[in-house]
Amino acid sequence: MPVSNMALPLLTDLYQFTMAYGYWRGGRHRERAEFELFFREAPFGGEFALFLGLGECVRFLRDFRFSPEDIAFLRTCMPGSPEEGFFQYLSTVNAAEVTVSSFPEGSVVFAREPLMKVRGPLLVVQLLETTLLCLVNYASLVGTNASRFRLAAGPDKKLVEMGLRRAQGPDGGLSASKYCYMGGFDSTSNVLAGKLYSIPVAGTVAHSYVASFSSLEDVRHRFLRPLNGDDNREDFVELSKRCVVEVCELLRVPKEQTNKGELAAFISYAMAFPQNFLVVLDTYSVMRSGVPNFCAVARALHHYGYQAVGVRLDSGNLARQSVEIREIFQKCAESFAIPRFKELTIAVSNNISENSLRLLCREKNEINVIGVGTHLVTCPQQPSLGCVYKLVQVNESPCMKLSEDTEKTTIPGSKAIYRLYDHDHHPILDLLACEDESPPETGIELECHKLGSSGETERVTPMKAELMHSISFDGKEKDDKILSDIMQIRDHAQKSVTNLSPEHRNFDKPKPYRVAVTEKLHALLTQLRGTSPLQ
Amino acid sequence: MPVSNMALPLLTDLYQFTMAYGYWRGGRHRERAEFELFFREAPFGGEFALFLGLGECVRFLRDFRFSPEDIAFLRTCMPGSPEEGFFQYLSTVNAAEVTVSSFPEGSVVFAREPLMKVRGPLLVVQLLETTLLCLVNYASLVGTNASRFRLAAGPDKKLVEMGLRRAQGPDGGLSASKYCYMGGFDSTSNVLAGKLYSIPVAGTVAHSYVASFSSLEDVRHRFLRPLNGDDNREDFVELSKRCVVEVCELLRVPKEQTNKGELAAFISYAMAFPQNFLVVLDTYSVMRSGVPNFCAVARALHHYGYQAVGVRLDSGNLARQSVEIREIFQKCAESFAIPRFKELTIAVSNNISENSLRLLCREKNEINVIGVGTHLVTCPQQPSLGCVYKLVQVNESPCMKLSEDTEKTTIPGSKAIYRLYDHDHHPILDLLACEDESPPETGIELECHKLGSSGETERVTPMKAELMHSISFDGKEKDDKILSDIMQIRDHAQKSVTNLSPEHRNFDKPKPYRVAVTEKLHALLTQLRGTSPLQ
Repeated sequence: MPVSNMALPLLTDLYQFTMAYGYWRGGRHRERAEFELFFREAPFGGEFALFLGLGECVRFLRDFRFSPEDIAFLRTCMPGSPEEGFFQYLSTVNAAEVTVSSFPEGSVVFAREPLMKVRGPLLVVQLLETTLLCLVNYASLVGTNASRFRLAAGPDKKLVEMGLRRAQGPDGGLSASKYCYMGGFDSTSNVLAGKLYSIPVAGTVAHSYVASFSSLEDVRHRFLRPLNGDDNREDFVELSKRCVVEVCELLRVPKEQTNKGELAAFISYAMAFPQNFLVVLDTYSVMRSGVPNFCAVARALHHYGYQAVGVRLDSGNLARQSVEIREIFQKCAESFAIPRFKELTIAVSNNISENSLRLLCREKNEINVIGVGTHLVTCPQQPSLGCVYKLVQVNESPCMKLSEDTEKTTIPGSKAIYRLYDHDHHPILDLLACEDESPPETGIELECHKLGSSGETERVTPMKAELMHSISFDGKEKDDKILSDIMQIRDHAQKSVTNLSPEHRNFDKPKPYRVAVTEKLHALLTQLRGTSPLQ
Repeated sequence: MPVSNMALPLLTDLYQFTMAYGYWRGGRHRERAEFELFFREAPFGGEFALFLGLGECVRFLRDFRFSPEDIAFLRTCMPGSPEEGFFQYLSTVNAAEVTVSSFPEGSVVFAREPLMKVRGPLLVVQLLETTLLCLVNYASLVGTNASRFRLAAGPDKKLVEMGLRRAQGPDGGLSASKYCYMGGFDSTSNVLAGKLYSIPVAGTVAHSYVASFSSLEDVRHRFLRPLNGDDNREDFVELSKRCVVEVCELLRVPKEQTNKGELAAFISYAMAFPQNFLVVLDTYSVMRSGVPNFCAVARALHHYGYQAVGVRLDSGNLARQSVEIREIFQKCAESFAIPRFKELTIAVSNNISENSLRLLCREKNEINVIGVGTHLVTCPQQPSLGCVYKLVQVNESPCMKLSEDTEKTTIPGSKAIYRLYDHDHHPILDLLACEDESPPETGIELECHKLGSSGETERVTPMKAELMHSISFDGKEKDDKILSDIMQIRDHAQKSVTNLSPEHRNFDKPKPYRVAVTEKLHALLTQLRGTSPLQ
């Protein structure tokens, strides 16, 4: 998988370098430190997120080193006059001593549990912060958004991502295409994403194509070879015109109101793609022009042995129109004795949001394919995930940030993360434990402390306890541990989401998923809090 | 200026290629067409946007050609079985016959007027759509957002963009840094953006640095060379500890409550950056620990001849804290006889939005520097601009899309755009005219038709009429016509915004800025509407 050429070691905040200099100047740069990457609240008012972006992080780490030009630039922009030895040291820095443990890419994850743990020399793991956040935040956000569109649409409708033009520039658009596919979309309109990531690419025709035809004279070539290869010399334009008359009578639409430019565009497109005829209906009037013109050209194609594919709607009440159009297709199927006319594809687009999709899917509709752009890639409900990267341990000593803003308080120390399951194999609770604790045992009740509560405890008996993290990088890629194939990640993501109990993945007031700490970790938290002036 | 390596000809929607094939197959690919790029509504509830992204568009056009690998990939993903001649033709396509006219980059622009006009062979200008939209949409959106933060902050406060970690991946972050600077920010935290675009880079220190110190023993080097170069062998840590006692007495803060790890971090950072000492105060308690520790270390630095720079606040009520901290600085300045203590920089951050910035700036405050991240780069108020690219002319014949959704109706034909000014040199109206009309004359009243209204007319007497478009590309870059330097674009943008009448750039209920069409263009619109079945 190619990655952006911009995920480079300088793609970070300047303060990482000033801090790095502080560590180096103070002789602390090689102390062992551990950071955790986590979010404080699940996005979109839901309970879960998909963890995505790991593959790009691992590749960033693999290539992490500063070029002579990078060092030269840092010399010009660091405040003060850092000692030359620092720059010499930087030029030797890489991620050979860095270890990352993480959830598998595509896993469902919850608020306040570490998605990744990054351990290594203090100076190096500090420098990695911003880039890792940049690579995980949007990937996980947009992938989670896609998974919610998939939940709203149900498993049967085809979902096409088409947000490139509204994304944050070229790479924003590519990331969107990749991670929406991982999150559960079926294809993208983005051709480059198809080329780079082997994602299925989809697309039909836009209004501009239709609007570019003003009359039937714009159709220059008038002959189409039938599917059976016969040397038919009938004029396809004339045939289509006769079909318009026939269709207009059937549908009781005045044929003068059908737009001739639109008919010309449909004919032209059908002649270019006789086996893939799918056009947009709303350049002029859907019911008075688009539908009769489409049915006429589809009928004409049928005379030549071809089967039309379908239509796209891009405005108005999509559910209601889809039902009306399906009825028309059924009427045509009967009247023309073309049974497959009933099953023509109805695709829709037009600024579809999670909410409008949910409403759409609750209504009676005959929609087969849904294209989603802006609301998918820009995530207007919540345009950032807000992952943070916090220091939890230095030299094997746990440490924490004890903000006056208690929401910003971190959980100290290196942790193991267990997912506990119920009888139905649904996850019920994620448990953070100190690393040296023995794992929870199947069928044995344990007491834990809910996070974000005022120390409330809870007893839970897991039917299964799964250790969620594994090493994905330790100086080099652990190929056996990271899912390198987009399809694998997509499958894992779909299984993860589907395996959630429905009450946790509800759109409206989902049941809070519990993330808790063991008694031992809770005691550590309390002890460290006690040493702070905030107490 | 380097650009993303991903702004490539395949970075587009598949339907551009299916349409291209339709044009080619129908023999229309070389017809002359003109598209317009515009938005239908100004972002963020305002009246204006900044037009940005032109430079990247021009560079994309300059390099527009398909590689053999591109063609090979297109063969695999095009529906149907396009004729081989099409792919051969595609491999010869470039933008040599394309002409772009546009506003200068950085101009204030308004809803429904063309920001760019793209003219050339139908097939080629159709293929350009998605990439041009992708390059203009986010650039203009985030630059406009930045200009609104600048308006809210006023001209004196320093604004730092620091959104990289929440942007849409690496290139999203780079675009944000570049276009926020053009929109009026002073600097970015993004080092790579600094390197690539010569934008000033800024940064201080994060909580993780502070949290990484647990006691004064973590300060390994204890000696600092005074500014005058004397060989002072006094222990800087001991001096700082004495200063803590002194400061705590002055501020009446119990010295036991100051955090020793934080003091160690401040000392270490001061020793690394004695001339650039600026630290974050809220890792523990701002008033009981951060402020006394900072003042103590700043006081100790002063003993060595150095002047501290300032502090950063990242939580709580920023305005009120800034006032309290300024008072403390004044008290220190007097008590320690260090007058410059009064003028220490107070920087703030913490999820600042346009709204919270406006509230902040209305309150009494002593803030000098404001860092903005998430709300700047993700534009949560409106995360996409919604530019569209519509066909307005084919073979010198105007054409239009006449949607049932009247908002989506386009204005036909190639147009000239004039900006009319009042006596005070503020723009009052942008006028779209047919290209062959003579320009509006100074001091001569003219009648025009407001857009978006039901044909209301209006009489206006311009004191100046400025033709807004010029050719920025005609097969090659017009270097004299596009602002290639980021600073130039930034200056032009600042002048454009400042020159707007305050009533048009109000945050609350700005006065609508009028975009109107001439009588002649209005007649053309009416005539084309008349031929449609929608009438």
